[in-house]
Amino acid sequence: MYIAKVYITLKPTVNDPQGLTIRGALHTLGFSTVQEVRAGKYIEIKIEENDLVKARAEVQDMCKKLLANTVIENFRFELEPLKAP
Amino acid sequence: MYIAKVYITLKPTVNDPQGLTIRGALHTLGFSTVQEVRAGKYIEIKIEENDLVKARAEVQDMCKKLLANTVIENFRFELEPLKAP
Repeated sequence: MYIAKVYITLKPTVNDPQGLTIRGALHTLGFSTVQEVRAGKYIEIKIEENDLVKARAEVQDMCKKLLANTVIENFRFELEPLKAP
Repeated sequence: MYIAKVYITLKPTVNDPQGLTIRGALHTLGFSTVQEVRAGKYIEIKIEENDLVKARAEVQDMCKKLLANTVIENFRFELEPLKAP
């Protein structure tokens, strides 16, 4: 069994209104050192699959088909083995 | 200058309707090995600060004051030095 940690970020050229809003709020709170904020998604997926190669291919497929919009987003992921409880 | 990579996740006991929805969608797409999905946030923050200790304290403060709702969410972050362009 594996746990996949998926990070989805907007491509650098894509506008990020959520990030701009967070930056504005941080400035208002007095964090004047903040230069840029980019907001993204973080998804953890537990997979019932013992073969690392298969698990990697599956997560890659999931990202392309559902999790990330590859026109405007980049994704990367890590797989960690998970011990059965 | 540092870049902070902040990961915000729901605490394990908190219901995660977004994660359940993603799991349902993945099952519908045929990814039957998926057991559990937890959705979270991923935020990258560029900080104009050359002192690692100060930068760490600032990001910690930002998470507590704005980025994470510590009643229902956990956060962790990494700081990486960033070369000026």
